[in-house]
Amino acid sequence: MADVTLQREKINQAIQILDELQLDCWLTFVRETGEQPDPALKLIFDQELTWHCAFILTHTGEKIAIVARYDDDLVKQGNLYNTVFTYTDNFASVLVETLTRLNPSSIALNYSIDDVAADGLTHGMYLQLVEALKATPFPERFTSSSPLISRLRSRKTSQELVRMRQAIQETYGLFDLITRSLKAGVTEREISDLVHAKMANRSLGSAWSYDSCPGVKFGPNTLFGHGIPGGIEIEPGFVVSVDLGVSYAGYCSDLQRMWYLRKPGEQNVPEVVSQAFAAVKGAIEAGKAVLKPGIQGWQVDAAAREYLVQAGYSEYQHALGHGVGRYAHDGGPILGPRWARYGETPYYTIEEGLVFTLELGVMTERGYVSQEDEVIVTAQGCEWFSQPQDAIYVV
Amino acid sequence: MADVTLQREKINQAIQILDELQLDCWLTFVRETGEQPDPALKLIFDQELTWHCAFILTHTGEKIAIVARYDDDLVKQGNLYNTVFTYTDNFASVLVETLTRLNPSSIALNYSIDDVAADGLTHGMYLQLVEALKATPFPERFTSSSPLISRLRSRKTSQELVRMRQAIQETYGLFDLITRSLKAGVTEREISDLVHAKMANRSLGSAWSYDSCPGVKFGPNTLFGHGIPGGIEIEPGFVVSVDLGVSYAGYCSDLQRMWYLRKPGEQNVPEVVSQAFAAVKGAIEAGKAVLKPGIQGWQVDAAAREYLVQAGYSEYQHALGHGVGRYAHDGGPILGPRWARYGETPYYTIEEGLVFTLELGVMTERGYVSQEDEVIVTAQGCEWFSQPQDAIYVV
Repeated sequence: MADVTLQREKINQAIQILDELQLDCWLTFVRETGEQPDPALKLIFDQELTWHCAFILTHTGEKIAIVARYDDDLVKQGNLYNTVFTYTDNFASVLVETLTRLNPSSIALNYSIDDVAADGLTHGMYLQLVEALKATPFPERFTSSSPLISRLRSRKTSQELVRMRQAIQETYGLFDLITRSLKAGVTEREISDLVHAKMANRSLGSAWSYDSCPGVKFGPNTLFGHGIPGGIEIEPGFVVSVDLGVSYAGYCSDLQRMWYLRKPGEQNVPEVVSQAFAAVKGAIEAGKAVLKPGIQGWQVDAAAREYLVQAGYSEYQHALGHGVGRYAHDGGPILGPRWARYGETPYYTIEEGLVFTLELGVMTERGYVSQEDEVIVTAQGCEWFSQPQDAIYVV
Repeated sequence: MADVTLQREKINQAIQILDELQLDCWLTFVRETGEQPDPALKLIFDQELTWHCAFILTHTGEKIAIVARYDDDLVKQGNLYNTVFTYTDNFASVLVETLTRLNPSSIALNYSIDDVAADGLTHGMYLQLVEALKATPFPERFTSSSPLISRLRSRKTSQELVRMRQAIQETYGLFDLITRSLKAGVTEREISDLVHAKMANRSLGSAWSYDSCPGVKFGPNTLFGHGIPGGIEIEPGFVVSVDLGVSYAGYCSDLQRMWYLRKPGEQNVPEVVSQAFAAVKGAIEAGKAVLKPGIQGWQVDAAAREYLVQAGYSEYQHALGHGVGRYAHDGGPILGPRWARYGETPYYTIEEGLVFTLELGVMTERGYVSQEDEVIVTAQGCEWFSQPQDAIYVV
């Protein structure tokens, strides 16, 4: 139950955000959360539940849980909810009674077109809510909780920031291990295995799919995108790019670093690589210069994208950055182009306190040259949350 | 990519089941599966994906994946799908083209009122499908994939059964550790910590919420249900009940065992405990005697429930059993009472090859007396899949 303080902070934040958004209540409706987790649930109740459970927070500060017998001990132990109703057979009647008493004019549910972090309600569970409430006016009052959840994730508490900084520190340690391990003949997979072993040793989770975290790219013939590190061996003259994030106490990092393996007798990094590195850094700085509260994410992406194209490189085929937090892709605003794939998220307004990645890369004849760091939005702009790589690590 | 053979077997099973059920196609539609996993996806593609992906299987044997750039390498590496379409901006047009070519008269989607294992499609993703296909006749052809997924999970391949047996063996090892560790003054939490350390050492996952797996109950004042093991110390004269499942290579076990800590000079287990143990075993045997292909799960539960009540004990407030597989609660038929909480699942027909738990317990003045084992359904009936506890372990 180590996380209960953090959950209490987030519950109180949620109540305040309900008030700000003039939403009457937020209903999180889940079952078998080990199998079908709702990404929003962890923020307000970080245990697994078996049967149908409803967590209701209201703008007036009510904290209500409707839980099945056998799940109720877990909920009572946490002491996060003032009112805990236990049912044996069917959640519907106590839910109808509770909502009838509250009579909310709006009920925010966890579904969202654009924001996966606010889209934890399954379609089957949605149909059950509609059925349970069919004799009431409440289904007409459903609305997406996406604006609420986006703010709730974005506004990191001090305890959340401490964990995220620690995740970054742990990631640096893993990059150091890679620096010590790179030599001609080592394969992408061997580097990945080394990092995995050290992660287990440090009790770190992977910030995304274990098999492709770290993403390790050796030289120009590596698989691109989210592939699994394979049998490619590093050769002198190759660029190495590693995309790595760890989960520390439930919070993630997401960073990219690069190395160059010198050829015999070679003093410096080849110009094609150093120029690409400068362009990547310049583009990221161009985005960072624009990032501040009140603007929209696509404007930040556009600044970086334009810089890169002006420098003579191809556009990157993804977003410049995304929120980081409980997940490496933590939902909320995207610093991305106005492509259909990103829906409305590039149009979300940036708030102070958000932590974003800034990331991009270009392919060269020596390999993939890329960088990714994290920034935190301040009142006037943003500042580095991780310490960016100043120069290519030469090994 | 160790699991690819298993996934290929499940994909071929799915195509056969589509044909059996006279369904034309199965569409699994996901995004950011690290954050919002679809429990059905792992069966047919066991890697995490970032952007909107559609996996389409047809009764004629087509295997189609529509994936975003950067996710496509992962999908191509697996070589499970004959046709892989890569999109950069928007999945909708290639999905419309593909479905128009296939022109299926039914499209099974992963939503279900009753079966959480078949309810991985979020409401937000459902709304996006409807929007993407709004100019087509396909939304009217949507149907629940629940009957398909129930069969697909239930029909364990030989490789799946090997993993499940290994998970059971590992669980026995953990029970032995508990036997060696129980003595007066040890707390529930200490036992839980010991088991967790050994699980980490053996690279085993927990089959349900880590904090309450194992569930450890000491004596008559333990928290009931899914609580977290706490500070209660074992005293002579206490019954100890442990509910434990591990995940081995992606497949779970789910077993309960019990112990009795003798008082000084005590020879035998007190009659109140041994009688309860006999009643619990008898009730489980009564259920097992009824379980066979073709009947419905509630009939199995009713046989055990009636036996227990005839023996003078209170009814258990849960189902007698559930399917086990990738999850401890693996969906499909429930061997449970006809309560609203279980929806239609107690009415599902039992098939050969299914693996179920049989579990129940009664509270006594010395503690919770319970047992849980696994059985596999055979052509004529069922047989033990785990080896049931014959007598209370006395320590």
